[in-house]
Amino acid sequence: MSAPVDGSTLPKDDAADVSARERILSAAFTLFQESGYEGTAMTRIARDAGMTPAAIYWHFPSKQDLLAGMLKRMYERSYAELRASVRSDGTATQRLSDYVRAYIRIQLEELGDRRNHSYATLASSLTEDGQRELGRLSRPYIELLREILRQGSDRGEFDVEDVSTTSYAIETMCEYVFTWFRTGGRLTVDEVGEKHLELVLRMLCASPPDPEHS
Amino acid sequence: MSAPVDGSTLPKDDAADVSARERILSAAFTLFQESGYEGTAMTRIARDAGMTPAAIYWHFPSKQDLLAGMLKRMYERSYAELRASVRSDGTATQRLSDYVRAYIRIQLEELGDRRNHSYATLASSLTEDGQRELGRLSRPYIELLREILRQGSDRGEFDVEDVSTTSYAIETMCEYVFTWFRTGGRLTVDEVGEKHLELVLRMLCASPPDPEHS
Repeated sequence: MSAPVDGSTLPKDDAADVSARERILSAAFTLFQESGYEGTAMTRIARDAGMTPAAIYWHFPSKQDLLAGMLKRMYERSYAELRASVRSDGTATQRLSDYVRAYIRIQLEELGDRRNHSYATLASSLTEDGQRELGRLSRPYIELLREILRQGSDRGEFDVEDVSTTSYAIETMCEYVFTWFRTGGRLTVDEVGEKHLELVLRMLCASPPDPEHS
Repeated sequence: MSAPVDGSTLPKDDAADVSARERILSAAFTLFQESGYEGTAMTRIARDAGMTPAAIYWHFPSKQDLLAGMLKRMYERSYAELRASVRSDGTATQRLSDYVRAYIRIQLEELGDRRNHSYATLASSLTEDGQRELGRLSRPYIELLREILRQGSDRGEFDVEDVSTTSYAIETMCEYVFTWFRTGGRLTVDEVGEKHLELVLRMLCASPPDPEHS
């Protein structure tokens, strides 16, 4: 079943379906992260979504389908936000700054820093096919970064010896920041973003962005 | 129960206990990573360890205890190897090179790159107390790195703006390298180690190590 993202232009029954599906995915998002895949019963998701277990199974034939749907929605939304945060017409340094700041912010503010079960953990409960599909959804994150690194390299802003390894190293630093960051600690989310940006620019032998237009 | 590491000097019964415990932990190490915590039955671990389920429960009263024991053993062994790989009397640049190369090698060669269930995933199946205990076991990894960063900073080898954040960024790059590396791909494990070292040295505005003594 492929659900339209925006239910507002749909006939009434379809719009109600989208809304129900959204409520289920939202409840699953919270519960899976709190209690893990094995620790979350479909009946509990149904209760939090305000519907009967039978209604859930109409939208998601199995708990596996629901987990896959929840992770897919999270990857797609986060990527849409990252993409929208990176200006398309700036210098490579400006665009990299957008990328690193937004990536850290999405990881720490929107996905949360107190995840008992990270989505990497949850993804390991998917079937092999499901994990491959999720891997496919994560490709645009690294492709966007590589495009910025190549732009900076071509224009002489960055010194990049190996785009592939460098992009993985940067993405890994940003992706797993939630494993050590704690809200209320020494640094704010924005400060972590700035410090990571400084480290990344050093990795590329780049000058910091012009403060006027950073 | 705290098991001595070396059974060779123990009375015969104790030595047999250590060996049985070691066989159980070794089977659990393989099976948990292959099939996950929920997906691995104690009876299967018993079979692979060549003993009865009752014998396992004598050593580990619950599957939780066994998971905790297996993760503890892995953290302690990996740290002992990392510690032994870092020379104690070198320059900060040499010691950092030892650290990064050994960390990447331990991650990719000894812990494997085809882990269906990484130990981070497995750790999320521990109780909160178990997770705190494991967090305690991971402290020496970052403390060793911080000691090297402070040494390099004090002696003018490194330019470090924030030891804490920089150490987390470096450790994260090395720790999660298994999420993207694939054996048989473009790069060998040693090449990934060298490339990461180059990126880390750039983050610290450091010169590459002297090839004669690197």
